[in-house]
Amino acid sequence: MHILDIIRKKRDGGTLTKDEIEYFVRGCTDGSIPDYQLSALLMAIYLNGMTHEETAELTLAMAHSGDMADLSAIHGVTVDKHSTGGVGDKTSMVIVPVCAACGVKIAKMSGRGLGHTGGTADKLESIPGMRIDLSPEEFTAQINKIGCAMIGQTGELCPADKKLYALRDVTGTVESVPLIASSIMSKKIASGAERILLDVKTGSGAFMKTTEDAITLAEEMVEIAKLSGRRAAALITDMDRPLGHAVGNTLEVLEVLETLHGRGPEDLTEECLELAANMIWLGEQAESLEHARKKAKTALETGKAFEKFCEMAEAQGADVRYLREPERFALSPVRKDVCAPRSGYVVHINAEQVGMASVRLGAGREKADDMLDYGAGIVLKKTVGDAVQKGEVIAELYGASAEKCRDAESVLHGAFRYGDEKTEECSLVLARVE
Amino acid sequence: MHILDIIRKKRDGGTLTKDEIEYFVRGCTDGSIPDYQLSALLMAIYLNGMTHEETAELTLAMAHSGDMADLSAIHGVTVDKHSTGGVGDKTSMVIVPVCAACGVKIAKMSGRGLGHTGGTADKLESIPGMRIDLSPEEFTAQINKIGCAMIGQTGELCPADKKLYALRDVTGTVESVPLIASSIMSKKIASGAERILLDVKTGSGAFMKTTEDAITLAEEMVEIAKLSGRRAAALITDMDRPLGHAVGNTLEVLEVLETLHGRGPEDLTEECLELAANMIWLGEQAESLEHARKKAKTALETGKAFEKFCEMAEAQGADVRYLREPERFALSPVRKDVCAPRSGYVVHINAEQVGMASVRLGAGREKADDMLDYGAGIVLKKTVGDAVQKGEVIAELYGASAEKCRDAESVLHGAFRYGDEKTEECSLVLARVE
Repeated sequence: MHILDIIRKKRDGGTLTKDEIEYFVRGCTDGSIPDYQLSALLMAIYLNGMTHEETAELTLAMAHSGDMADLSAIHGVTVDKHSTGGVGDKTSMVIVPVCAACGVKIAKMSGRGLGHTGGTADKLESIPGMRIDLSPEEFTAQINKIGCAMIGQTGELCPADKKLYALRDVTGTVESVPLIASSIMSKKIASGAERILLDVKTGSGAFMKTTEDAITLAEEMVEIAKLSGRRAAALITDMDRPLGHAVGNTLEVLEVLETLHGRGPEDLTEECLELAANMIWLGEQAESLEHARKKAKTALETGKAFEKFCEMAEAQGADVRYLREPERFALSPVRKDVCAPRSGYVVHINAEQVGMASVRLGAGREKADDMLDYGAGIVLKKTVGDAVQKGEVIAELYGASAEKCRDAESVLHGAFRYGDEKTEECSLVLARVE
Repeated sequence: MHILDIIRKKRDGGTLTKDEIEYFVRGCTDGSIPDYQLSALLMAIYLNGMTHEETAELTLAMAHSGDMADLSAIHGVTVDKHSTGGVGDKTSMVIVPVCAACGVKIAKMSGRGLGHTGGTADKLESIPGMRIDLSPEEFTAQINKIGCAMIGQTGELCPADKKLYALRDVTGTVESVPLIASSIMSKKIASGAERILLDVKTGSGAFMKTTEDAITLAEEMVEIAKLSGRRAAALITDMDRPLGHAVGNTLEVLEVLETLHGRGPEDLTEECLELAANMIWLGEQAESLEHARKKAKTALETGKAFEKFCEMAEAQGADVRYLREPERFALSPVRKDVCAPRSGYVVHINAEQVGMASVRLGAGREKADDMLDYGAGIVLKKTVGDAVQKGEVIAELYGASAEKCRDAESVLHGAFRYGDEKTEECSLVLARVE
């Protein structure tokens, strides 16, 4: 077999075989195929597409290019969730305990944050004592005992995907449905999940700019799951603005605790319940999606979800006094109000720019080895659709120094757009694919 | 400007501007754009094509990426010829003196051979004393004095094309009309020609497998010439077999001398006269193409072309006694007959494989720094359409040792295909584009 023949076949619109796909993924992993050949192939795939079968084979080949999590010791069906992340996305920390409280087994592995996007692993570590480096045995034992565990990514997951993703980023081949779908699904499959709920973001800041495109991507991923013996469903959600009010590690944990007590921001609560309900349904712990929604809501309202979160955190070494008395959490010492420069309505908040402002405060990383300031971050006081008066507080900043706060303030101002008329609020969940 | 935007634009079917094309050709020449981005762009160009204007801009940008020959000191219009080369292609050595004898100015730069393809520069150097390293001043002065000169390639011609060609070769992006056309034309334009005759080969061994594809390529090149202020015409010729009988440096010079005396192989003579006539017509030294054909034929028949060849060779330091008494040339000491393994008709001779056999004899190079044995080579005794008896001689080999001859013999056997019926001979010149 030769890579040149594979490139030519895809260039001419042909369908690659399992062997051909495995050959180039192996050559990508071991470095034997040079970048310039991989990028020519990626462009041919971008322009000529891939069948569902090719995309599923690419997904499996990338999943098997590195370590594969073994969840076979867990009793019952495990359900995982994928989300493209995003600024202020703390949904995992709410959903995991809600689902576990409803009988679903959740083995959650999360990444760290980089750039404007925060990572769940960092947020969890801002809880004093919390360990996210459980051994595989500790991980599965805890899930069998209390139904859930949340850890950082271990081993080397999908090195072929990592390599191809980096190349796609610099060769204009990112926005391809088969390439995006296989990249996402390979990581989920390597993480060991049998049932997968996909949260596909749409909007100006996302890969998929329109709901239609997002549905196409979702359908592709649901199909990949089917072809590789798993089951998936997808929700198309709006990501045109940050979710909830808090951005920053400790601040987001505090918002999660509020939400688990049923007092969280409406948009965050609504999205978490819908995602959790879908996972409960996928995990066969409800008779219908409607029934699953009711179970999820009850788990929040009765405090069972909160108790499950405490149970999980305690099992992972956390000092649960912080969770029960959140005033124990320390925020960064300098607090600064950001005020509206004009009167009117907030018509848009650019989530990416809010994320960049939080990085300036020390809540995120610019480089992979940057240290985080857990107590730093932003609390948005106004959201899209709110009326503001000139000089009114639109956000609070927390940082280690006045300089960091000033720096972040100027970035944050650029994230808000004002207008004279109130914009219509659109639904967070736009569509569902199964 | 950013290369990623240029890749995306071409990926989405857009038309690149002059500035964008110059930007990526510059980045290719100075190495600032990495190979993996160039290869993604090449694949996007391959699949989405280029307009005539884009192709012309690419041609000019590549031509200007290195040294540009300055032929302005030559009085009159210079005509150049491009040929894709090919096994046993000694047409340039016949055409140049024929054209010069008819009043056309020819400033010919030729390359060296590599792999199965021989190079005119090597063939010329097999004439004792012949210098092909004239200075630019010597070159133009000689053309003004006697009408023609043939030298090796000087300076660095089209480094951007060299780089892109090497990448195309390993990324499945060779067979693209705009990329082939701009590659050929950039070198012709950098060589300084104002009128260009293109010899576009077609057939199983060529880039363009069908006459239709070859015409498309020819039209693209004629259009590039127009858009860059030059004039071109193209002949579509059959390259399904080696031209003439001789393959190897001295052997080909001997065949050229025979042809200049009007005693050459019919196919070679016919093709040389047609190419020369077209160049005479392009160089405005005839009233019609028919008139040009007559002039070319007369130049051969009267011996004027042979005298012009001697005049040029003498001006370039050659010992013309070899040209006037060709028995002075030494061939390699070991001579071996190759015999037909069966009776029947020769239905096909694979030119590439004949070229490979000549490399085994030492007549060509496997690597760029291999030494040549000028006296080595092959004389084909049978050609396509000929009847053969089992054991009859089909070719003579000349080599430095019996081992080389044995080695070449086995390769040469693979080049001949036999059958029971005589195949129809097709015309060498299949079409003309102007």
